[in-house]
Amino acid sequence: MRPYLTTRSLIPENQETPISFIRGWQTEEPLFYRRNHFQYPRLPEDHLFLPILGHVQQPRMFSYQDLASMPSKTLTVALECAGNQRSKFDPRVYGEQWENGAVSQGTWRGVPLAYLITLTGLHSTAKEVVFEGQDFGKREDLEGVFYYGRSLPLTKALHPDTIIAYEFNGKPIPFKHGYPYRLIVPQWYAMASVKWLKRIKVIDHEYQGPFQTIDYQYYPYPDLDKGKTPVTVTNVNSIIQQPLPFQILDQGIHQLEGLAWTGLGRIKEVEVSVTGGESWEKATLVNSTAQPYAWTQWSYLWEVKEKGEYRIKSRAKDYNGRVQPEKPFWNRKGYGYNAIAEVKVKVV
Amino acid sequence: MRPYLTTRSLIPENQETPISFIRGWQTEEPLFYRRNHFQYPRLPEDHLFLPILGHVQQPRMFSYQDLASMPSKTLTVALECAGNQRSKFDPRVYGEQWENGAVSQGTWRGVPLAYLITLTGLHSTAKEVVFEGQDFGKREDLEGVFYYGRSLPLTKALHPDTIIAYEFNGKPIPFKHGYPYRLIVPQWYAMASVKWLKRIKVIDHEYQGPFQTIDYQYYPYPDLDKGKTPVTVTNVNSIIQQPLPFQILDQGIHQLEGLAWTGLGRIKEVEVSVTGGESWEKATLVNSTAQPYAWTQWSYLWEVKEKGEYRIKSRAKDYNGRVQPEKPFWNRKGYGYNAIAEVKVKVV
Repeated sequence: MRPYLTTRSLIPENQETPISFIRGWQTEEPLFYRRNHFQYPRLPEDHLFLPILGHVQQPRMFSYQDLASMPSKTLTVALECAGNQRSKFDPRVYGEQWENGAVSQGTWRGVPLAYLITLTGLHSTAKEVVFEGQDFGKREDLEGVFYYGRSLPLTKALHPDTIIAYEFNGKPIPFKHGYPYRLIVPQWYAMASVKWLKRIKVIDHEYQGPFQTIDYQYYPYPDLDKGKTPVTVTNVNSIIQQPLPFQILDQGIHQLEGLAWTGLGRIKEVEVSVTGGESWEKATLVNSTAQPYAWTQWSYLWEVKEKGEYRIKSRAKDYNGRVQPEKPFWNRKGYGYNAIAEVKVKVV
Repeated sequence: MRPYLTTRSLIPENQETPISFIRGWQTEEPLFYRRNHFQYPRLPEDHLFLPILGHVQQPRMFSYQDLASMPSKTLTVALECAGNQRSKFDPRVYGEQWENGAVSQGTWRGVPLAYLITLTGLHSTAKEVVFEGQDFGKREDLEGVFYYGRSLPLTKALHPDTIIAYEFNGKPIPFKHGYPYRLIVPQWYAMASVKWLKRIKVIDHEYQGPFQTIDYQYYPYPDLDKGKTPVTVTNVNSIIQQPLPFQILDQGIHQLEGLAWTGLGRIKEVEVSVTGGESWEKATLVNSTAQPYAWTQWSYLWEVKEKGEYRIKSRAKDYNGRVQPEKPFWNRKGYGYNAIAEVKVKVV
């Protein structure tokens, strides 16, 4: 028996990780969630060359050999789609109906963008860095054809752990996950980690691409665009992997298991409630201090001696004082869901 | 891109068909839903021999060669798990949280049980026929170990289309779907179609196995067992395959697609509403009269010129006058869901 990706759509391909059944530290490629805005791109002949241009002192074109010979970093990063758990918003919101598996963890090796920028230099006018993917297509809401592109402010772009990755789990990046180059932006939702990098452009203004200014914005109102704010740092979050929702259990000892992660620092604690939130206990954490961007596995031994229905909850806190809320922050496009996780079970 | 089974649990293995992405007449084995009560059985050495015993004139042991040389029937049958769509009941019920993919369609070839019974004869005391699978294990609610077993009343057991199947889609039955022999009971929910048939026993009383008397009963009350009735004939039903729930569509023409089936006779019509049930139109049916137990594919061309939110519904009727209800019949174990299908979409 093995789990499979859960299919949300095929054109474009959107499939989520069967997260309840994932154990261990890395999500291997067959079970790493796939999120696409368009059909997969056809890579051009020159796809191994990566230009950096725009408001730089010296535009450069990097080859695969160039990058592979430079100082590299290897980071294990939990990547979460900003729309993960969108299906749980109430009122419901439109878009891909992700449950809780649009999150996976891989080990990425690449060259810090900051290092490449030391080779190109920057103009004093430089303000943002735009990352363009090879993927393009139509949108439902606009006329025309658009490339997938996103920008980062200079400070985040030049963070020493923002890397141009060329390896995933020790091998060249699989095509569906961005071969040959994928930007990896730890701590931000995964829309920032642009796949199939085609070119990098330093600009002197705020990037206006639709995946920056229309999508990946929190819209607090159902019908108005006012008050929108950009989606950036990943919220503190946890999920319950076991038991499964509405599972029937026998009396005895059950190991509750789950994952927790945050985009600001590290997970400090995960609390578990088996009383629907009346009382909370600390879960045991498996937390690699060597990998600051990785998720934390949590577990809790639950002895249950009485029949009945139980509401199990998990609540993560990070070292920045952030804690999962009772209710998610509702927003029209359904981003950033991080309410306390809950699973109901029946003991017979 | 290809769809995968959606994993509900691994031990036992329960995975549902990605039904929105299934086209065509047969569900091939990799995408045929898997529903198990226990871990997969280890087949004994004599698994190719099938005994029929009990209240018969002449107990017989049939070999694979025996069966393969007998008159056979080939039937295309939509098999639906009685718990399909359990996740949609409100109030929610416990058990495997099937969405709408615990249904698949295969072509089964086998020998009518009625033919085998002509060779064994029946005692006048014969009342039911019990079908025992090779699979066994523990239950959450009872002490001890149980085989999976189910009975049929004589009239259904001896129906000319109740077959002992030895082929699925033109090949030996895949192990996970009951190799070497699977009982196929058209028109009944799939719990009746016992996999890995070990033996067939004619009895003179009502079978009392837990999968007959505890499970697969409609319990109308949340806490009381009174009023329970057995799950048998498949309800009239339809699903919407396209568009997907909460999909965002552009203005123009969209093909709505789905499936419909019934356990009593045949599908007469499928009506579609794009107005949340205010008005209904007839869908176009692809209905093979040659295969009375198969599902019907339906489609409807929808031209939408105005932005907004739309509630799309489908409602099937069969020739027995049965029609999908507005609300499902709630029952504690969550069987037989067949409310009118609904998908909400947003047109931008």
